[in-house]
Amino acid sequence: MTDSLRQLLHSISPADPALREPGQARLDNLTKPKGSLGRLEELALKMYMARGGEAPAADPARIFTVAGDHGVAREGVSAFPQEVTRQMVLNFLNGGAGINVLARTVGAELYVVNAGVAGPLFDQHPDLIQYKLGDGTNNFTQGPAMDETTCERALLFGAQLADQARADGIRTLLTGDMGIANTTPSTALYCAHLGLKPQDITGPGTGLGSEGVARKIDAIQRALAVNTDAVSSRDPLRVLAALGGFELAVLAGLILGGAANRQMILVDGFISTAAYVSAWKFCPHVADYAVLSHSSAEPGYAAAVRGLGGDPLLDLGFRLGEGTGAAVALFLLRSAADIFNTMATFDEAGVAEGD
Amino acid sequence: MTDSLRQLLHSISPADPALREPGQARLDNLTKPKGSLGRLEELALKMYMARGGEAPAADPARIFTVAGDHGVAREGVSAFPQEVTRQMVLNFLNGGAGINVLARTVGAELYVVNAGVAGPLFDQHPDLIQYKLGDGTNNFTQGPAMDETTCERALLFGAQLADQARADGIRTLLTGDMGIANTTPSTALYCAHLGLKPQDITGPGTGLGSEGVARKIDAIQRALAVNTDAVSSRDPLRVLAALGGFELAVLAGLILGGAANRQMILVDGFISTAAYVSAWKFCPHVADYAVLSHSSAEPGYAAAVRGLGGDPLLDLGFRLGEGTGAAVALFLLRSAADIFNTMATFDEAGVAEGD
Repeated sequence: MTDSLRQLLHSISPADPALREPGQARLDNLTKPKGSLGRLEELALKMYMARGGEAPAADPARIFTVAGDHGVAREGVSAFPQEVTRQMVLNFLNGGAGINVLARTVGAELYVVNAGVAGPLFDQHPDLIQYKLGDGTNNFTQGPAMDETTCERALLFGAQLADQARADGIRTLLTGDMGIANTTPSTALYCAHLGLKPQDITGPGTGLGSEGVARKIDAIQRALAVNTDAVSSRDPLRVLAALGGFELAVLAGLILGGAANRQMILVDGFISTAAYVSAWKFCPHVADYAVLSHSSAEPGYAAAVRGLGGDPLLDLGFRLGEGTGAAVALFLLRSAADIFNTMATFDEAGVAEGD
Repeated sequence: MTDSLRQLLHSISPADPALREPGQARLDNLTKPKGSLGRLEELALKMYMARGGEAPAADPARIFTVAGDHGVAREGVSAFPQEVTRQMVLNFLNGGAGINVLARTVGAELYVVNAGVAGPLFDQHPDLIQYKLGDGTNNFTQGPAMDETTCERALLFGAQLADQARADGIRTLLTGDMGIANTTPSTALYCAHLGLKPQDITGPGTGLGSEGVARKIDAIQRALAVNTDAVSSRDPLRVLAALGGFELAVLAGLILGGAANRQMILVDGFISTAAYVSAWKFCPHVADYAVLSHSSAEPGYAAAVRGLGGDPLLDLGFRLGEGTGAAVALFLLRSAADIFNTMATFDEAGVAEGD
């Protein structure tokens, strides 16, 4: 681990627990039965504590949809061909994908990060951030997906994205992904970090049949076997380099950087949560800044959430990635901040309190 | 039943099932794995069919927070004193309540309807609609909450609110309620309409302890007993008059009127869903236009949803009413419309389709 990464990890502080009481007192004085806005109150308190007792604020918000290809796609682990990663990045840049629509609906900025898409892309596009670490990762059934130096570069670049966003006044970071086959490395990361078995938690991704799922389980088993030294080291950097992906490593760095900056981080679904687990293994304080946005039907997700102690806000049956679950959840973060900041108290409104 | 009410019920048509195929085809051509936006796709299809094949549109949207008092409050069935209904209506008109905040956040109009709040209220306020049917209902443990003529007036007035909204170009109606003690008549309506027992489904409302819940069960049992003729008639008008409330009847009428107008209706939580069950008993076609927004922790809710065959969009632990669950869900309806209307198709984007 380089000094830069060590410095990043040391710069992440937990939220101050002493802020819980005044934050809760504010919420309990608002004109509603205590706790009756449920998870919005929980979000408001989390934002208040994350920001060191400042008024919660969700906006402005920026989505990073980070794209990368995966050598393991050659093992037939996805329902879609690899070139779809690049085609979808072009679709993002043309404004036509699901995440473009939802970013507009919710009023968030969207940047697309090329962390390692196979094949050429535009050199320049106002919404595209180029940080190409390769034409896809190595096939991790044959060795590490990437070397540790590359993985560290990806992490630090993710943290730089958070820093640039902070400099631009961004309060909330939203994670998103694009990468054909990336439920495979994500599942491998859950297995390695949470002690789970591929045959127990491997799912259909974007739409594999049972034969495809069997191939995917086999690929993950081989990846865990060939990378067994990295896995048993429990070193988060080695595990991420061995089993991750370029987009996963950049997203893990974005989460670490966001936590260091006391930004709120809306973590999208299955893939982003694998990046979040990686970040959490580097530094568990990220939990004070991150919110799991949307549940995933992939069987590994529930196991991962149990392991993390989290509870995703939404379960709308999304299985698209791109940041779509996080985008929809931004509206809840915004609602929570507005409730905390602008609802009347019992005193202000002259309303009697309950028993 | 008067001719006016009969006419209203006859004017509600089901959505045309032939629209399902072209609507689904549009969704399946968008650049995402089929079905991967889950409930947003389901909402988009519902809107498309409800609007007779027009482009789905959620906006503009109008929230009606309908307030009324309940004679049964005298039985000690709420954690809050009755005057809180009136105090909260004033809070709504001053813009300080939860529903005010969320209406602003989501960008919906908010009207407060005084359907029968005990005590004086402003004569005039730009956000207040006066249709006061009494100083609260009768105590329904001693006879019907209201007479059938009053109930019918409330229903027809609710439908008029939907018509006025249509004249103003409103596409989506959101239901909300305020009325101390109104989980009691709502629970009674669930019991009567769905064959459930008060001891099985009565919950704490805004925060009763176990003694309070026992009083509430007893009150509902007495109400069902004293109004047994109405309950066993299965006549939706008689049941609603006997066991309902002014706000519940206006909301049921709003739902019926919205369905007749082919408007989308976002049904809030426990109380609004009791109004929805009443509307559905008058005319089951309301299901083609209504969306259950937010789950309720009240034990009657799950039973009711099973009985209705619905599946609420959100479960954020809200137990406030006012329309807060519907307000938050409006964002999902808007997202669904935007997905249907503005996402690129595989052809437009030049993206390969999956297996």
